[in-house]
Amino acid sequence: MIQKLIANIKKTNAPIVVGLDPMLSYVPEQVQKKAYAEFGETLEGAAEAIWQFNKEIIDHTYDLIPAVKPQVAMYEQFGVPGMAAFKKTVDYCKEKGLVVIGDIKRGDIGSTSAAYATGHLGRVQIGSKSYVPFDEDFVTVNPYLGSDGVNPFIDVCKEEKKGLFILVKTSNPSSGEFQDQLIDGKPLYELVGERVAQWGESCMGEEYSYIGAVVGATYPEMGKALRKIMPKSYILVPGYGAQGGKGKDLVHFFNEDGLGAIVNSSRGIIAAYKQEAYAKFGPEHFGEASRAAVEAMVADISSALESR
Amino acid sequence: MIQKLIANIKKTNAPIVVGLDPMLSYVPEQVQKKAYAEFGETLEGAAEAIWQFNKEIIDHTYDLIPAVKPQVAMYEQFGVPGMAAFKKTVDYCKEKGLVVIGDIKRGDIGSTSAAYATGHLGRVQIGSKSYVPFDEDFVTVNPYLGSDGVNPFIDVCKEEKKGLFILVKTSNPSSGEFQDQLIDGKPLYELVGERVAQWGESCMGEEYSYIGAVVGATYPEMGKALRKIMPKSYILVPGYGAQGGKGKDLVHFFNEDGLGAIVNSSRGIIAAYKQEAYAKFGPEHFGEASRAAVEAMVADISSALESR
Repeated sequence: MIQKLIANIKKTNAPIVVGLDPMLSYVPEQVQKKAYAEFGETLEGAAEAIWQFNKEIIDHTYDLIPAVKPQVAMYEQFGVPGMAAFKKTVDYCKEKGLVVIGDIKRGDIGSTSAAYATGHLGRVQIGSKSYVPFDEDFVTVNPYLGSDGVNPFIDVCKEEKKGLFILVKTSNPSSGEFQDQLIDGKPLYELVGERVAQWGESCMGEEYSYIGAVVGATYPEMGKALRKIMPKSYILVPGYGAQGGKGKDLVHFFNEDGLGAIVNSSRGIIAAYKQEAYAKFGPEHFGEASRAAVEAMVADISSALESR
Repeated sequence: MIQKLIANIKKTNAPIVVGLDPMLSYVPEQVQKKAYAEFGETLEGAAEAIWQFNKEIIDHTYDLIPAVKPQVAMYEQFGVPGMAAFKKTVDYCKEKGLVVIGDIKRGDIGSTSAAYATGHLGRVQIGSKSYVPFDEDFVTVNPYLGSDGVNPFIDVCKEEKKGLFILVKTSNPSSGEFQDQLIDGKPLYELVGERVAQWGESCMGEEYSYIGAVVGATYPEMGKALRKIMPKSYILVPGYGAQGGKGKDLVHFFNEDGLGAIVNSSRGIIAAYKQEAYAKFGPEHFGEASRAAVEAMVADISSALESR
């Protein structure tokens, strides 16, 4: 799957991923109204609204982008119907040829991580039949429990040719509270980065491993250090746009080959129509606003990469 | 909700929690067959099988125990129908008067943690209506992202009178890989424990805070140290039974008042009928085997606490 991700990035010339994190407050009124008319102001109605919102954005951007990253929390908050909307979104994006990174940040003791890996990347056996429950291409994993929390995910990735992005240094303001603590003079995130590089060694695609890392755009200096620690790991970079990261902050997350990183923007793309820069599209044409925001993001990152 | 948990513990005289982690391999053949006859060998069939399995165990144990801890991964592995079985299980346990600890180990950046907190502990607004999507009483939280990943959960707990157990030192063999790393001579898990104590200060019930911690039964010495670091925090102790922890290892997780800890067993209770000690019940009477295993676990812990 890392090869498909890289092929998609080369084809679109866009090392970006659109975060499909649909808060109801981002969904234009006409989309909500239509969903509630059919399903009522219910969990089912909200699930329909976010699914229709996603679909419109995907339809307007899929030819420009290599991948999407639905954040499962935004679906889980609408209970079981929300999880059904998550699954619909995953399937639709795959139909459109996109790589789907499930932002699930799971991680547990061995047997439990194995169940998560089965549910999100693998197949589950039921009697004589087997099923692919959520079937993302990559998922994000929390490493706090150590190797035996991560290995079951790696095992499923090997079987199913899928991949991981393991949290190393997250984009949020308080990420340093534990992740930056020094251990023999070295921050915890570097220690985790070294383990990611090790885990990745036995999981190579061609130039890159299918075991990648998450490093926030908001910490460019740390990104530079981690790029060297994990030369073969793809880095998923959240925090661009709404969280404060800019194209010029991101160049050191990439390798010299122009590959090795993929930058996520969520709000900045999916709620673009709410920004002054794209207000001309209006809520009726929110999909077109998202398309314009994708084009601007690609231009920003490309020009930063070209001028380095 | 911490008061309800403590009241339930005092009433049953059993500081234990039954982990409802239904692997299909634990579900007796007759239960699976019946579910597949109705729904086929499908995700829906598996979800029905684990729900009927849970129901039988709850019906045979609810009067002996204060709380249950469904592990969401075991439901998530069956996709959307699995999540519906999770929700059914939560609701049924609450009807029976049990405190429900959702073992979800979520944790993300602020706005995303807020969505998880809404989905699992809070209520979500949809137009003019509001809903409680999964509605557990407590959830487990992963602290790797620091305060701004945890605070949104705390905010919802304050509003909804619910609670958390934050991962401090997990029960798995490789938990030390990152959690035991020394920071200025102090292991990371102690640093996290100190933060749990701080987070808990503003969240007091009567004697105990509703912000608790997870500390594995498999590390009794660390449990002893952490008990002192977090005197007002309830400790959820996994790893009893199948993972190797015994009653005598657990006494230092408790305070002098006999409170302050609640010990989880999953496989050891729900798959008791597969153990030699309970084989006499046979797969037909698996609920009775679970009841006997609960009684043995309570006796083991009580006698350890009495003889300390």
